Amino acid sequence: MTLPTSASPDANPTDAGLAAAAAARRAAPDAPFLVAAAGGTPSRRPVWMMRQAGRSLPEYRELRAGVEMLDSCFRPDLLSEITLQPVRRHDADAAILFSDIVVPLKAAGVAVDIVPGRGPVLEHPVRTPADIAALPTVEPGQLESVVEGIGGVLDELRDDQVLIGFAGAPFTLASYLIEGGPSKNHGITKSLMYSEPQTWHALMERLTPTVITFLRTQLEAGIDALQLFDSWAGFLSLKDYREFVAPYSQRIFDAVRPYGVPMIHFGVNTAELLGEMAAVGPDIIGVDWKTPLDVAAARVTADLRDRGLRVPRAIQGNLDPAVLLAGPEVIAGHVRRICAEGDAAIAAGNATGHIFNLGHGVLPETDPDAITRAFAEVHAL
Amino acid sequence: MTLPTSASPDANPTDAGLAAAAAARRAAPDAPFLVAAAGGTPSRRPVWMMRQAGRSLPEYRELRAGVEMLDSCFRPDLLSEITLQPVRRHDADAAILFSDIVVPLKAAGVAVDIVPGRGPVLEHPVRTPADIAALPTVEPGQLESVVEGIGGVLDELRDDQVLIGFAGAPFTLASYLIEGGPSKNHGITKSLMYSEPQTWHALMERLTPTVITFLRTQLEAGIDALQLFDSWAGFLSLKDYREFVAPYSQRIFDAVRPYGVPMIHFGVNTAELLGEMAAVGPDIIGVDWKTPLDVAAARVTADLRDRGLRVPRAIQGNLDPAVLLAGPEVIAGHVRRICAEGDAAIAAGNATGHIFNLGHGVLPETDPDAITRAFAEVHAL
Repeated sequence: MTLPTSASPDANPTDAGLAAAAAARRAAPDAPFLVAAAGGTPSRRPVWMMRQAGRSLPEYRELRAGVEMLDSCFRPDLLSEITLQPVRRHDADAAILFSDIVVPLKAAGVAVDIVPGRGPVLEHPVRTPADIAALPTVEPGQLESVVEGIGGVLDELRDDQVLIGFAGAPFTLASYLIEGGPSKNHGITKSLMYSEPQTWHALMERLTPTVITFLRTQLEAGIDALQLFDSWAGFLSLKDYREFVAPYSQRIFDAVRPYGVPMIHFGVNTAELLGEMAAVGPDIIGVDWKTPLDVAAARVTADLRDRGLRVPRAIQGNLDPAVLLAGPEVIAGHVRRICAEGDAAIAAGNATGHIFNLGHGVLPETDPDAITRAFAEVHAL
Repeated sequence: MTLPTSASPDANPTDAGLAAAAAARRAAPDAPFLVAAAGGTPSRRPVWMMRQAGRSLPEYRELRAGVEMLDSCFRPDLLSEITLQPVRRHDADAAILFSDIVVPLKAAGVAVDIVPGRGPVLEHPVRTPADIAALPTVEPGQLESVVEGIGGVLDELRDDQVLIGFAGAPFTLASYLIEGGPSKNHGITKSLMYSEPQTWHALMERLTPTVITFLRTQLEAGIDALQLFDSWAGFLSLKDYREFVAPYSQRIFDAVRPYGVPMIHFGVNTAELLGEMAAVGPDIIGVDWKTPLDVAAARVTADLRDRGLRVPRAIQGNLDPAVLLAGPEVIAGHVRRICAEGDAAIAAGNATGHIFNLGHGVLPETDPDAITRAFAEVHAL
């Protein structure tokens, strides 16, 4: 186990940090995920699914029996095993690190728990400059169990399978902190953003290093790719996203780009934000189930080229998770449509690769066999 | 009190029904709402807010003390008073009929209750052809208390204020019926839609007459305008919306168009659906807070003109309800921006009128004075 060495998150990564990441990372030049992400021709279309690790699998529910959600994110043996379960069962091209949006906050010492059926709940909401000043920033040493869990995953993955690291973006973290838990409308969050922009920016400044440290720690433990989730960004207008969110997400992508792994950015209800979320720096843009991939890629490409910006190489998505609750023929039909839309995006020159995924997370009530079949369908096309 | 006469909801309205509506409706030629909806120049920019009647007002909470939500929708005195409270307090240009999506189902005899903090909960979810066959269709006679309540509102409204009638669209009704209550992802609904399209269409066929009867009953009681809410349509892709939802919404607009009142259509998260929701037949398209009004109007107009379809005349929206939780200066700034975007849509020839509204409903924690000030700001511009 190598402990991360980059302790100053807002600076460039240290040479030692980059060297540690390079040493920890496995050589996987033919992994379909990496080939597709790099704009090459993969041996098969890569597929993974958000929330593939977790609630839909009986072996997960068995393993979690009697273990609190957040405890399982900090127990290396459970973390590895839960991350690997869907990869084994479904022949996935990527494992997604089993974690939660609030893991880096919990690691830093924030009093947060995940209440079953509700989500992350904070003991004290963070709403004032004093609250923000008291908010701890995570230190690499507080993430040792995650590092160890990543090592366990990498030991078992095949060379053609990758491990995708995971972090929630600062806006989504901020919303949990301000609301004190999940929110239907993010009213307190937005009201703070509007009425006390300085307080808002101070909170985002405070959270950004935590996200960077969380991702760098994973990178220096050997992850092959990463996804920055901005689950709730789709609650914002483009104007507000630009002013209050984009600069921080951009700083995070800038801070981890030197590690050279493919970086994914994703949120739901982002039809109006796709261009801006692509502009903050990811290599791969994830699309929810509501915008067809070819439409999304065309929109993003037109927007970014107009602005003289680099266009993400690959698109990721975008099966409606509810489709997996329908029968095999329905699923197969949607899989074919989405692959055709991915191919159309590539043929039009608006993407160089397609990574198959859902347009949101696996629903808990999904039959695992339906997931396995969907993976096989993608691979057969 | 006039009871409605149109009993066969899928046919054209009867002459007697149209005559009853015309007789019940007040003459309000100079009402800013109606002038803006007709493409004229109103004496001031009309404004109302979704959920203006209800939880934000202390006089509402007082009136509702000890009265179940659905009971209050069926008590004419309460219905009138609750509908009128925000009009008096805020000098609104329109009253919105106090009601709930499930009111016509409840009136028809469906066992449904509104559970505080949760929403409408069905005693028996509707998921099979037998469930659908057993689902009653509302009869005008079951809506007498709503008719009486409307009469009470019309008696008190000024001539320059209008009463907007209200119905939930069949997709949103279907989701409550299938899920058995509010749902985060509408998974059971979509899975039924995908795996048993015949069952889905049978349910939509069953619900459409209920929505039509509910609206015609309100029309024949004298409402001046109507809004068809498709709260959850934004969970669907454009393709699915077209196939599974649009035909029924279109039939509803067709069935009530002969009454000649302005018809509004609205949903949230509809960035990808705006054109299609405009295409089903409303005169006014409501926009959530995430798409600027000028952008929305341009998109809708381009889409519908390409297809040789009639373009809605006016746009309605679209202040983020969370803005009302911020301070007066923030609110004033957003109001000015939205009015400017509405004016830009008109100047570009993509709309002939702007009706100011929120981009979703008033949040319960909103200070009523902030709402009053926002109305005044709109009127002052």
